[in-house]
Amino acid sequence: MIRFALFGCGRIGRMHADNLAAHPEAALLWAYDVHGPSAEAVAEKHGCKAAGSVAEVLADPAVEAVLIASSTDTHVELITAAARAGKAILCEKPIDLDIAKVDACWNEIGPLGVPIQIGFNRRYDPSFNAVQKAIRAGEIGDLRQVIITSRDPGLAPREYLQTSGGIFRDMTIHDFDMARWLLGEEPVEVTATASRLVDPGLMADVDDFDTVMVQMRTASGRQCHINGCREAVYGYDQRFEIFGSLGMLQNENLRPTTVRRWGRTETEVQEPLLNFFLERYAEAYRIELDLFLQALETGGAMPVTPHDGRQALRLADCALESALSGRAVAV
Amino acid sequence: MIRFALFGCGRIGRMHADNLAAHPEAALLWAYDVHGPSAEAVAEKHGCKAAGSVAEVLADPAVEAVLIASSTDTHVELITAAARAGKAILCEKPIDLDIAKVDACWNEIGPLGVPIQIGFNRRYDPSFNAVQKAIRAGEIGDLRQVIITSRDPGLAPREYLQTSGGIFRDMTIHDFDMARWLLGEEPVEVTATASRLVDPGLMADVDDFDTVMVQMRTASGRQCHINGCREAVYGYDQRFEIFGSLGMLQNENLRPTTVRRWGRTETEVQEPLLNFFLERYAEAYRIELDLFLQALETGGAMPVTPHDGRQALRLADCALESALSGRAVAV
Amino acid sequence: MIRFALFGCGRIGRMHADNLAAHPEAALLWAYDVHGPSAEAVAEKHGCKAAGSVAEVLADPAVEAVLIASSTDTHVELITAAARAGKAILCEKPIDLDIAKVDACWNEIGPLGVPIQIGFNRRYDPSFNAVQKAIRAGEIGDLRQVIITSRDPGLAPREYLQTSGGIFRDMTIHDFDMARWLLGEEPVEVTATASRLVDPGLMADVDDFDTVMVQMRTASGRQCHINGCREAVYGYDQRFEIFGSLGMLQNENLRPTTVRRWGRTETEVQEPLLNFFLERYAEAYRIELDLFLQALETGGAMPVTPHDGRQALRLADCALESALSGRAVAV
Amino acid sequence: MIRFALFGCGRIGRMHADNLAAHPEAALLWAYDVHGPSAEAVAEKHGCKAAGSVAEVLADPAVEAVLIASSTDTHVELITAAARAGKAILCEKPIDLDIAKVDACWNEIGPLGVPIQIGFNRRYDPSFNAVQKAIRAGEIGDLRQVIITSRDPGLAPREYLQTSGGIFRDMTIHDFDMARWLLGEEPVEVTATASRLVDPGLMADVDDFDTVMVQMRTASGRQCHINGCREAVYGYDQRFEIFGSLGMLQNENLRPTTVRRWGRTETEVQEPLLNFFLERYAEAYRIELDLFLQALETGGAMPVTPHDGRQALRLADCALESALSGRAVAV
Repeated sequence: MIRFALFGCGRIGRMHADNLAAHPEAALLWAYDVHGPSAEAVAEKHGCKAAGSVAEVLADPAVEAVLIASSTDTHVELITAAARAGKAILCEKPIDLDIAKVDACWNEIGPLGVPIQIGFNRRYDPSFNAVQKAIRAGEIGDLRQVIITSRDPGLAPREYLQTSGGIFRDMTIHDFDMARWLLGEEPVEVTATASRLVDPGLMADVDDFDTVMVQMRTASGRQCHINGCREAVYGYDQRFEIFGSLGMLQNENLRPTTVRRWGRTETEVQEPLLNFFLERYAEAYRIELDLFLQALETGGAMPVTPHDGRQALRLADCALESALSGRAVAV
Repeated sequence: MIRFALFGCGRIGRMHADNLAAHPEAALLWAYDVHGPSAEAVAEKHGCKAAGSVAEVLADPAVEAVLIASSTDTHVELITAAARAGKAILCEKPIDLDIAKVDACWNEIGPLGVPIQIGFNRRYDPSFNAVQKAIRAGEIGDLRQVIITSRDPGLAPREYLQTSGGIFRDMTIHDFDMARWLLGEEPVEVTATASRLVDPGLMADVDDFDTVMVQMRTASGRQCHINGCREAVYGYDQRFEIFGSLGMLQNENLRPTTVRRWGRTETEVQEPLLNFFLERYAEAYRIELDLFLQALETGGAMPVTPHDGRQALRLADCALESALSGRAVAV
Repeated sequence: MIRFALFGCGRIGRMHADNLAAHPEAALLWAYDVHGPSAEAVAEKHGCKAAGSVAEVLADPAVEAVLIASSTDTHVELITAAARAGKAILCEKPIDLDIAKVDACWNEIGPLGVPIQIGFNRRYDPSFNAVQKAIRAGEIGDLRQVIITSRDPGLAPREYLQTSGGIFRDMTIHDFDMARWLLGEEPVEVTATASRLVDPGLMADVDDFDTVMVQMRTASGRQCHINGCREAVYGYDQRFEIFGSLGMLQNENLRPTTVRRWGRTETEVQEPLLNFFLERYAEAYRIELDLFLQALETGGAMPVTPHDGRQALRLADCALESALSGRAVAV
Repeated sequence: MIRFALFGCGRIGRMHADNLAAHPEAALLWAYDVHGPSAEAVAEKHGCKAAGSVAEVLADPAVEAVLIASSTDTHVELITAAARAGKAILCEKPIDLDIAKVDACWNEIGPLGVPIQIGFNRRYDPSFNAVQKAIRAGEIGDLRQVIITSRDPGLAPREYLQTSGGIFRDMTIHDFDMARWLLGEEPVEVTATASRLVDPGLMADVDDFDTVMVQMRTASGRQCHINGCREAVYGYDQRFEIFGSLGMLQNENLRPTTVRRWGRTETEVQEPLLNFFLERYAEAYRIELDLFLQALETGGAMPVTPHDGRQALRLADCALESALSGRAVAV
């Protein structure tokens, strides 16, 4: 049984609180949020304490692990404080939007040796895992091309977009992590193109893009394409295609039901996709927590490390540089 | 090169004439139809002669084979005359609607030894053939259940329905042939139910049904279900499912294109099915002719015999008896 | 918050205990099983009391509802006792294998007016529900044919088969319930055929069948086909096809992942189906409990009544009679 | 009825000869090939004349149109000669591998005003056409991203590869044409990456690549990705995905049959794809000829012009330059 404190009681924090409450090996002791009533609501629902400060939580020797689900700009500070307090850390991605801060943080806490897992939720999805395991098991021989499709169901609110760090660091960062994980080799060159097609005015205002393509290659010549868009009317579109010398692997999207409708002008009609990440990756989030707990209990390695978080951010920075400069960027 | 005469220049006769013209081993010498201008149109299109009578055609020693695509009530007479004249015969199904006439015909012409093939077009469909070959090759082990779905896109005209012999002898007869071919064993018991759901008034007028289910079993306990309907708004629905001890085989329907459309409320939308038998079985009709020619040239056995035609009719008669009596009928 | 006692702590009972523990509106007070240690294990896991007798449980005024997941032969007795004690009842199907006992039970407890829900789990499956709602909403117009496929992944143990009541009452009973629910009209005639194809020796020993087909019609001429088998090597096969005047509805099976594999000789390869009912209907069981709780809290009607349980058993009896006699049986 | 001469009697030439023979509005008068016996074989099969020289053919005033299916290095010379002789021209792609020669040819023959169609076969595929028409009809709103997958079933022989002009000009040129046709706007920037992953030694020998990715954008910010490979073990892979503001369009590959196989460890197994372009685009080649004939008979515009051939080659040149230089190339 591992005892947790939760930092951040927004939508994703509450989902993590539910998963902690449901896991037989986890106990939630504290909930903290800069907005006190949010923490109190979680505390009431799950019978834990609402904390008045981060310090109060980290001073409690009963707390063995912290789950950081607060806003991105607080991650480095919380990670650092928690590591100094000797707590194990499960931190939502991204670590930070500034790679220099990420590197500085890691330089400081690396020597402290606390177990840290970065919450790239997609690493835990059962279908994505089956694909990655099949690649590693050689089922498609030598890997040649990875195609990643990643489209959000709709534009985030302006407030979010203003501080998101931009589409590459906020949204495509997941796909950069998937690319590294699937390719089994680091990309050495990134070329990206970025457009404002969904809401050009808003995107100009927030100095961001809404529609992107990225092309990467590894030292051995493996190729990866990512396409992303902040809006897809048919739902949250999350697909891979992995092509190799002996075959191909694909995964399909998920829907609420499996019903197909046939009529006079249309056949095999299916419903739209599961709407967004909390629904699509519900099982992945549960597995993420489960693997964190397993690693803590066995002392094993964490499945996703701060280095992974850092490398995905580096690819995002390269992609932005490429999109702005019109040049391929060496990683 | 085999020289043919065509009896019947309606829609299906013209399709056969096109196939004869396109086949490098076939030549069309004569076209005959009770409606003279129909025969003349075929003759003009394909550069053959329009016959004034059946006798004129059969008297031509150059004619080696006849293709009978005229109305069902003429089949027995034409088969008998052609057999007496020593011509090879490719005859559209059914041989006749009256099994006593079929048996009498066969008793007379059997001893003449002319090659005869019955045009059960579905036997030649590439997907259906792949299914049947996989069964015989043991890919699904011991066969347990056959499910046949067979729905026409729309009601035939009243004129056709009045002389069709009824849904079991006209439409489901194809499925009875498929059942025998797939089961690899004769059904010994037939239970059927028949309803008037598409157009109850018309069906009562023509003393027929439009919606049927049939259940059959073989001596060894294999089971077969057929469902049929004279109208399916989404197109001509032709499917099998074969279930055995080691697995299952299914075939899918065909569409004009493979396009899938995704929108705000619907995803993976496909278009309606190919509309009817001339389109759906276009390739099957070409293969049917090809195999007839191959059998003639090699002297090999015909792939579908008059006995097959007779047995399918027998099952249709049993199904009608069962639907009318509410009892299972032994074959 | 509704306080429950659980009768039966076998595999399905433990699953229900987990669902009760996870539901915010339910509390589990007691667990009982004829095998004491099974009850104690549930009690320890969920922090409730293990009961030494049924009477002890029913005498506790704090218990508001009972969940009956014990063996079928105990259902009538437990339902009766619980109803007399004024407890709400959620009882696993079937009520009993003997329709006379079912009717006698209902005659006795009906007047007591306690809320009773029968656990036909499939009624709660999201895909099945979407199909049924679409039928009722008129999406496919007038219903013509219902096709139900229902194949278990493998033979149950001999011990189970000896007391199961036979394939129609044990397994196909779910499909009879689905048929009534989907048809929206009572079947008036049942024809069934039953074979021993999976394990003829075992089936003869336990006087049962392993492979069945059922054909039914309603007074208005709607038709229904059910095919069932106690073994399908590719997994637990649970499908509907509903055909109407304006279109068709189908549901697909579920798999652990959505991965498709392509290789030199095979393409679009998917993995086997979710293995059996606890996995396939995991969400349905949670919804079943949730709707039971909602009905208790609102005083609304139970979604599946003892009458539904009775009628499905009646159809199973008719099917068995038909299979043994070779005659259509009027319901 | 249009009278044709055929230049080039290799595999694709013979396919065109068959289509000419089968088309009711076309007649084949002459067949020519540098290898005399090839021309004679076609002449014998279709009852036309084998020509001893190009001049002999072009001097025949009965010849109204020429179909050029000879090797690429002969195209410009034949097009020029045929245009001077006033013959209509249907020429296989590409016009030439050297864009300067293409421009010079077009400068010379443009003023002659003969009807010319370039044989980009994919423009005529029914599924691709349905996709393109749906885009133009606004079904997916504003176009955002085009994804083109284009993988050959296996490496061409060394002899072919040595003179093919390289993967971008030989194979991806089709995809560049598709991109222009689907995007509805010219690409203004091309970035490509190219690897030797299938047969590195052979590719180095012939100074070519076997695995490529291309990323393009238009002036309005629409994006296009192409992935290509000279080998896919599962067959000839030809897919589009078109993503827009109101939805998405996809097309699927074709297979010889629609059979799906289910077994103990694998389900929904389909067979490999149709093997290569003559099979996959058989219908497209027939429609290509038909539309050429229609345009000739009506005097309408040709559906694919020399300008289209020139632009696709220009994009191929840009892609090669990008792959070699590591820079984005402005078109």
